[in-house]
Amino acid sequence: MSLEKLQKRVKELEEELRKVKHGGAASREKIAHMSAEVVDTNPYSRLMALKRMGIVSDYEKIRTHTVAVVGVGGVGSVTAEMLTRCGIGKLLLFDYDKVELANMNRLFFQPHQAGLSKVEAAAATLQSINPDVTFETHNYNITTVDNFDHFMERIKSGSLTGGPVDLVLSCVDNYEARMAVNRACNELGQTWFESGVSENAVSGHIQFLIPGETACFDCAPPLVVASQIDERTLKREGVCAASLPTTMGIVAGMLVQNVLKFLLNFGTVSYYLGYNALLDFFPTMTVRPNPQCEDYWCKVRQGEYQAKLAAQPPKEEGTKEEEEEVVHEDNEWGISLVEEDTPAPAAVSQMSGLAQGIRVAYDRPAPPAGAEANSAPAVDDSTSLDELMAQMKAL
Amino acid sequence: MSLEKLQKRVKELEEELRKVKHGGAASREKIAHMSAEVVDTNPYSRLMALKRMGIVSDYEKIRTHTVAVVGVGGVGSVTAEMLTRCGIGKLLLFDYDKVELANMNRLFFQPHQAGLSKVEAAAATLQSINPDVTFETHNYNITTVDNFDHFMERIKSGSLTGGPVDLVLSCVDNYEARMAVNRACNELGQTWFESGVSENAVSGHIQFLIPGETACFDCAPPLVVASQIDERTLKREGVCAASLPTTMGIVAGMLVQNVLKFLLNFGTVSYYLGYNALLDFFPTMTVRPNPQCEDYWCKVRQGEYQAKLAAQPPKEEGTKEEEEEVVHEDNEWGISLVEEDTPAPAAVSQMSGLAQGIRVAYDRPAPPAGAEANSAPAVDDSTSLDELMAQMKAL
Repeated sequence: MSLEKLQKRVKELEEELRKVKHGGAASREKIAHMSAEVVDTNPYSRLMALKRMGIVSDYEKIRTHTVAVVGVGGVGSVTAEMLTRCGIGKLLLFDYDKVELANMNRLFFQPHQAGLSKVEAAAATLQSINPDVTFETHNYNITTVDNFDHFMERIKSGSLTGGPVDLVLSCVDNYEARMAVNRACNELGQTWFESGVSENAVSGHIQFLIPGETACFDCAPPLVVASQIDERTLKREGVCAASLPTTMGIVAGMLVQNVLKFLLNFGTVSYYLGYNALLDFFPTMTVRPNPQCEDYWCKVRQGEYQAKLAAQPPKEEGTKEEEEEVVHEDNEWGISLVEEDTPAPAAVSQMSGLAQGIRVAYDRPAPPAGAEANSAPAVDDSTSLDELMAQMKAL
Repeated sequence: MSLEKLQKRVKELEEELRKVKHGGAASREKIAHMSAEVVDTNPYSRLMALKRMGIVSDYEKIRTHTVAVVGVGGVGSVTAEMLTRCGIGKLLLFDYDKVELANMNRLFFQPHQAGLSKVEAAAATLQSINPDVTFETHNYNITTVDNFDHFMERIKSGSLTGGPVDLVLSCVDNYEARMAVNRACNELGQTWFESGVSENAVSGHIQFLIPGETACFDCAPPLVVASQIDERTLKREGVCAASLPTTMGIVAGMLVQNVLKFLLNFGTVSYYLGYNALLDFFPTMTVRPNPQCEDYWCKVRQGEYQAKLAAQPPKEEGTKEEEEEVVHEDNEWGISLVEEDTPAPAAVSQMSGLAQGIRVAYDRPAPPAGAEANSAPAVDDSTSLDELMAQMKAL
């Protein structure tokens, strides 16, 4: 080979190596339209099959949706990968951390990415997995004043059409970041999901928050909260939280499954879903907002929600049942699921199951005594904050 | 650069590219002993923290264990990745399939691996993620006569010390392969886990099988079974099963979490754990073996187990409680979980929850009527096959 050809070959190889290592390799062409065709080369055949199975009526709609993932660690990275493989339209990724070998006990990141920023490493890998998804990355801490304003702006106008994102998913590991997401979503009236894994790695939860309608993060702490101790403080002292790829993978799976149910309109979205790994116990419930919540915008949204409820004509008895959609029907595969007589996600009986089995960790003070005046008729069949606290204290 | 130097550089780059693409790249050195040291370069710090948190007493023991994963698809590949990241001693991987773009809607495999055998692609990626794990791959179908014999032999003598593996995990997608794993494990008296995801992608399960002690796969079908229709037959007709990265990730997480609990002796191992994605409902139960099971070795193991029970001195009242270990205690993080008054995993009340919410899919005939004679006093608090079938039929 001539000197020129060899030089050209070295450049090609270096470029390919860079792409493969840091993502961006065009492993497949972009696909203009999702197809249900069953061929080995179609990455969407198994997803489009959800339509034939009677689960989802319009799977292609996923391409129109934008989701923001805040925190690209043990839960957030797997969350982003699942959404990418499902063919989401656009992902916004927020994180200020770097990949370290100490993250290798969780799924997603690989040793050759050590030292790269999490958002850049993630976006590169995800882009090579699915080039049809649009990625927008922000390598910063959302809790500083300037960054918080920019974060708010991107939530408000970061969608594929320049409008608000469809959902914000909080996958952060500390109290301050959760409070920042909560504040932004309350102010913007933005529907979002909270997620968390305990410091001992054997429990976790997801929570669905509709400002004004369900409790915000400031109304009531989640039942199992990741400690508010900053991970970096911990590390400086030679101490770190435990984590497991199993627990984080399950929490990411529960989160994205509920995101899909919300975006594609199938099944029932859980307001709160916990996971206790030691017992394989998964409590569900709904918590009403606290009328005395310290978050100004939470109270504004509560007022709006109450006004909306008051403006609605009173429902006749039996109307509610008629409104409920049959989530899916018997199908050609002989597999059927029926929702008849299924306890509601908010059933207090399930709550009492939790009270029997789990003592709860709080990392913040209990809500003010005045919260007893809670009389807001918010979500049906819900457990009030007071009932919740009373049950917890009775343990 | 000289011609020789350029030629050398091309070779180096080609070799590095091959390693990065197909794994095998030495992204980090092997680590001789697991350390709890909290530094960014220690991939085991978050796992060893489980000891300080009071969850696991001897995490390092995981390095002595060998697990066989049968089927490296949507559930098996994630299962193998989780175990690899947890630092398992050795993994045996069995699969005869190739990676296709049509698999990209599930976690783990990436487009650049299309065309490679699943076991080779998986082992290469996993080896680069954790070079401390030993991998043994078998690119064949375990259901053919010769391969089945070899499969049996590897289960019997494939561990790090040349003895039987600690667990077999069935992550296959068809009835024949499940029956082959069941037959091998019954004959060898090998403890194993079954797993499955339904054709409509919105339910799944794991099941823990101790030959003679709990129902085998031939005694009772799992409550939600992947259809026995062969995937390749489906594809030939232009039809395929639906699948989601969420459901498969959650089932893999439930599976590996229970594997960790079994191998490292913490928490409670579930005998059966189901997942209904539409309702976020997770039924648990225990099913006793069928004395009329058609599997010869299952009946042999049942006889051995009964003989063992009969040979044990009768327990005094209250002894059982005393034997139960406190799975973990209050720790310095203020997070505590207690097992007091927690319903047993086999509680019939949970079973009735299932009966309320889910109609079950069977892909095989009901067990013989003679099964009514079931009087084996096997697992405590269990639901007999008859009770189970009666509840299902009552729907």
